[in-house]
Amino acid sequence: MDSLPSQTFSVEITDNHIHAGAVAVPGAQTSEWLLNSPDPPTFWEQIVGVINETAIPRSCRKNPNKKVSSSSSEKQSIFKTIITLLQRVFPILKLARNYKASKFKNDLMAGLTLASLCIPQSIGYANLAKLDPQFGLYTSVVPPLIYAFMGSSREIAIGPVAVVSLLLSSMLQEIQDPVADPVAYRRLVFTVTLFAGIFQASFGLLRLGFLVDFLSHAAIVGFMAGAAILIGLQQMKGLLAISNFTTKTDVVSVLKSVVRSVHQTWYPLNIVIGCSFLIFLLVARFIGRRNKKLFWVSAIAPLISVILSTLIVFVSRADKHGVKIVKEVKEGLNPISIHQLQLNSTTVGLAAKSGLIAALIALTEAIAVGRSFASIKGYNIDGNKEMIAIGFMNIIGSLTSCYIATGSFSRTAVNYSAGCESVLSNIVMAITVMVTLQFFTRFLYFTPMAILASIILSALPGLVDINEAVRIWKVDKLDFLACLGAFLGVLFHSVEFGLLVAVGISFAKILLISIRPGTEEVGRLPRSDMFCNRKQFPMATKTQGFSIIRINSALLCFANASFIRDRIMRLVEEDEDGDDIAIKDQPKQLVVDMCNVMSIDTSGIIVLEELHKRLLLHGIQLTIASPKWEVIHKLKKTKFVERIEGRVFLSVGEAVDSCIGNASKFPSP
Amino acid sequence: MDSLPSQTFSVEITDNHIHAGAVAVPGAQTSEWLLNSPDPPTFWEQIVGVINETAIPRSCRKNPNKKVSSSSSEKQSIFKTIITLLQRVFPILKLARNYKASKFKNDLMAGLTLASLCIPQSIGYANLAKLDPQFGLYTSVVPPLIYAFMGSSREIAIGPVAVVSLLLSSMLQEIQDPVADPVAYRRLVFTVTLFAGIFQASFGLLRLGFLVDFLSHAAIVGFMAGAAILIGLQQMKGLLAISNFTTKTDVVSVLKSVVRSVHQTWYPLNIVIGCSFLIFLLVARFIGRRNKKLFWVSAIAPLISVILSTLIVFVSRADKHGVKIVKEVKEGLNPISIHQLQLNSTTVGLAAKSGLIAALIALTEAIAVGRSFASIKGYNIDGNKEMIAIGFMNIIGSLTSCYIATGSFSRTAVNYSAGCESVLSNIVMAITVMVTLQFFTRFLYFTPMAILASIILSALPGLVDINEAVRIWKVDKLDFLACLGAFLGVLFHSVEFGLLVAVGISFAKILLISIRPGTEEVGRLPRSDMFCNRKQFPMATKTQGFSIIRINSALLCFANASFIRDRIMRLVEEDEDGDDIAIKDQPKQLVVDMCNVMSIDTSGIIVLEELHKRLLLHGIQLTIASPKWEVIHKLKKTKFVERIEGRVFLSVGEAVDSCIGNASKFPSP
Repeated sequence: MDSLPSQTFSVEITDNHIHAGAVAVPGAQTSEWLLNSPDPPTFWEQIVGVINETAIPRSCRKNPNKKVSSSSSEKQSIFKTIITLLQRVFPILKLARNYKASKFKNDLMAGLTLASLCIPQSIGYANLAKLDPQFGLYTSVVPPLIYAFMGSSREIAIGPVAVVSLLLSSMLQEIQDPVADPVAYRRLVFTVTLFAGIFQASFGLLRLGFLVDFLSHAAIVGFMAGAAILIGLQQMKGLLAISNFTTKTDVVSVLKSVVRSVHQTWYPLNIVIGCSFLIFLLVARFIGRRNKKLFWVSAIAPLISVILSTLIVFVSRADKHGVKIVKEVKEGLNPISIHQLQLNSTTVGLAAKSGLIAALIALTEAIAVGRSFASIKGYNIDGNKEMIAIGFMNIIGSLTSCYIATGSFSRTAVNYSAGCESVLSNIVMAITVMVTLQFFTRFLYFTPMAILASIILSALPGLVDINEAVRIWKVDKLDFLACLGAFLGVLFHSVEFGLLVAVGISFAKILLISIRPGTEEVGRLPRSDMFCNRKQFPMATKTQGFSIIRINSALLCFANASFIRDRIMRLVEEDEDGDDIAIKDQPKQLVVDMCNVMSIDTSGIIVLEELHKRLLLHGIQLTIASPKWEVIHKLKKTKFVERIEGRVFLSVGEAVDSCIGNASKFPSP
Repeated sequence: MDSLPSQTFSVEITDNHIHAGAVAVPGAQTSEWLLNSPDPPTFWEQIVGVINETAIPRSCRKNPNKKVSSSSSEKQSIFKTIITLLQRVFPILKLARNYKASKFKNDLMAGLTLASLCIPQSIGYANLAKLDPQFGLYTSVVPPLIYAFMGSSREIAIGPVAVVSLLLSSMLQEIQDPVADPVAYRRLVFTVTLFAGIFQASFGLLRLGFLVDFLSHAAIVGFMAGAAILIGLQQMKGLLAISNFTTKTDVVSVLKSVVRSVHQTWYPLNIVIGCSFLIFLLVARFIGRRNKKLFWVSAIAPLISVILSTLIVFVSRADKHGVKIVKEVKEGLNPISIHQLQLNSTTVGLAAKSGLIAALIALTEAIAVGRSFASIKGYNIDGNKEMIAIGFMNIIGSLTSCYIATGSFSRTAVNYSAGCESVLSNIVMAITVMVTLQFFTRFLYFTPMAILASIILSALPGLVDINEAVRIWKVDKLDFLACLGAFLGVLFHSVEFGLLVAVGISFAKILLISIRPGTEEVGRLPRSDMFCNRKQFPMATKTQGFSIIRINSALLCFANASFIRDRIMRLVEEDEDGDDIAIKDQPKQLVVDMCNVMSIDTSGIIVLEELHKRLLLHGIQLTIASPKWEVIHKLKKTKFVERIEGRVFLSVGEAVDSCIGNASKFPSP
């Protein structure tokens, strides 16, 4: 990797010799090249280009370049096309080619491990989403099966996740009270799931994968941490067995609810069971983290906790002493829920809005999970294809009594550690959950609620990434502000508000940075033709008789152009009034280095014209150096280049050389 | 201007010789300079710097550098300081030093010309603002006097203007009906004027002059054109003598009102008088524009029209045949209006909001007018000082029965053409209007309303700048969109909405341009060390064995980083799968030229790390060229530089040379 093959190398040396040996190309010629360069792509062409690039699948774009070998028979080619098409829609078909028994053994083990973690988590998350326990289990059956056929990630573990469950209950409790009318609430949840699936699939089909990018990394870190704390606080209900728990999710309401419950009668046994098993789970987690080979300890600890605690409650009949238990979990596989969708009710608009928010959060988590594990194993995930798979699994899920499923961070890590080879581990897990639903739900009757709370609590530390927050603070203060905004917004207002704050801050930051006005003085680096910021490179020397000012903004536009003009004028005038009277009445050249200016608008051009006029009053010539393609195009179009008599150069060095050449009337050296 | 003095020139040549003659500095050294450069100013330092620069007046900042001569006595210095301070607050005091009788003659003539134009316009604009005629005249007395003492522009003509009058009536009619309760409406207008003055003065005191820049040039062009059309339509009321005119200002409502009025009884005499004088005014305007020496024809034409038409109506008693006349204009100078301010009513919030909008529009017009004429005469206007002057004149105005005054474009042009020498022409004008108010208002009794309408109409063509709109369309399509948005918003919704649309589009454009993802392939220009876009410079040659990709976005951030990573990966992978099988398995170097990237956030850094990891899987080394100060700082902080083994170079040329050097294990040439 560190060496190039010799044939390339020799070419390189030749190329290098040419440019080093030959006489440097005169500035006048490059300036001509610059002024005669073709028109840049218009803004619309760029937009269309980007849309084309994202909207047309890569395989389609590449096909025209590839010649179909004419010798192959038509029939075979059609057959092949169908196979390829099927494989593209259902990546699982690609497995068939080289799947071996040894691989299946790994997948089977990973799937069973996954199921042991998934069953208690699903029940807990369903509780967090204010649904009956069986709905969590349903969500661990159908969506993983659909995903297994359509998805392209090999490690991702599909099912209900904590953040989306919290988000759902936080948004939907305001529309429909889950305690007063659980049936209507459930119908609303399925409707929202349908909308989320439709949004996700259409984002994928319309190739709008970039939407997921609008949640910046910093925002996600803050959002996850805030959500984790809220989820933890929600578990107080199960841990303290509080009956009149608040329906709001923000910190203040929940803490008030907890404090209020202290004055009511409460049952210490719940806390004893919950906390002791929480300690057990955290120790298991610690062992699993410490020794990668013992990861299974942390993976099966939840199932062991459930079995043990259920046995203890069953034997001691602690439920008669105030220990809250799960009670009945409905037996049997997912019932059909098409008839429960409420597409013509008054709340359909709200359901669609909630669906959109949940869809984005679910996608963000799934794609982040999928990509991070794919990059470990060195393969690539097509975000748009993933979105289609996730969308379809949620659409089908909403018809079969599931709520929104996505890729779970904690379970995917377990799946990966358990050595899964393919998406088959998801199928194994789904079948195991199906078997549980069919035959073992009655054993969950005596499972204490506190144990579910402690299982969820034990998974939360993974969501709060303090190290990353510290890193963000160190690298970028404004990014940290977005992170903090999301965190506090989620904690003290609502999940949606936190997201809105984070997205708002992120975009405000872009605006602020883009219009941030700035100029810097540049100087020539010793023994080179490069001109650099004199503050960054103190060894750069000033060229006497020249003010060389670099505009330090990417945009020269209405919002910053006047400021930049004023600052340049001030530099010029202050130099004139300055202490150094010796050079006071000496005419100077002003080179404005526009290498940073990516775009200029009509206000920017007007300001340049004003600058030119004002400088003329001081007897100073304005020279433009290194304008970008778009900028030189606009300067040509508005005849500004003619007005400054073509003093536009490809680099600061050439601008300086040319000015000296002109001034001395000597041929430039 | 075209030649440098010889002593500078000789220095230049020497400097030039040094860099041309000496051996080029090796890439390793510049790379070291780059990696060891000091920390850039943090974002907060930059913000604080910009605020300092705008917030602290220049004169204060410069003082510490200047040494106070210790020989001058203390007393004299205090006296001088007071004089300087007074002169700074009241620039008119500077006049005293070198004002001559000849100058006063010019100012007197200009002031009288101004008054002849100002009196009919003021009455017309008061009518547009739904106020009685005398309030327009009041507004031409007090504000110009105040401005004369505090303002620094010499040409600006202060008084009521069309756009602000329309804006006021458009905003305030919704709060208070001017026909049903003219007294309450008037009180509201004074309150809004007070707020506008306070906002303007505080913008100036807090040095928030940049706020005016947030209305882009394109937005102003569109806004002015839309407002001009609305103002023109409002004149239909006077021209057609419609009694039940709509209180709304949008095109649809006004046109409906006009169509409805056709079915009512109407008086053709109004139209005959209005149109004949409109033709006269337009011809006078045309003459004044054609021959700069005859500008006074267009300047006094309005006064002549008023006198003539009043005489005609008075003699023929046409008011008895349906010609609407001004009727009584209250005699006497501005009454005090302190007691009319409504600071504790329920509408105070709305008044403050309207005041803010009106303040911004008025400032935008005044500063644009002041600056454009100052730049013709070659002096500079301090925007913040102007804001304080305009703010104070409106505050005092609101206490003396004036509504919002600002700099008028048409009258300033007349003032300039009439040869004004100083702000004294404003004082002459104000005194003339005072005399008129005191003695001549009774002569305005028979002035037909139609003539006021035609005077306003004749001034409108100056507000619609179709050539500029065409130029904007040619230069920048998105700017034109902002222009069009402002135009249509004003026309079809409301003045405020048009402004909002324009500001919204302008900022959305900044966002769009900033996150627009892009990459371009760069190549070496023949016989030079410069690497340029190969599409812009077709003569640039590709360096074999290298992919040199320039990131074409000013920000590498959450919103575009994934896209850019995917595009770079695609280029790499497509090259690998490409037709050119000969170079297929040849490891390549990838140089990412980051010269355009002004800022990178945590998402951007994560994407670079992913890119590095993925490229390693393909056996490709990632090299970073020409990172900006902020970018290299962050790459160092996050240890990314260590991860790519310090392959960061100051320019693409050095990156390429260094890679060749490393690959061959030869010393770099």
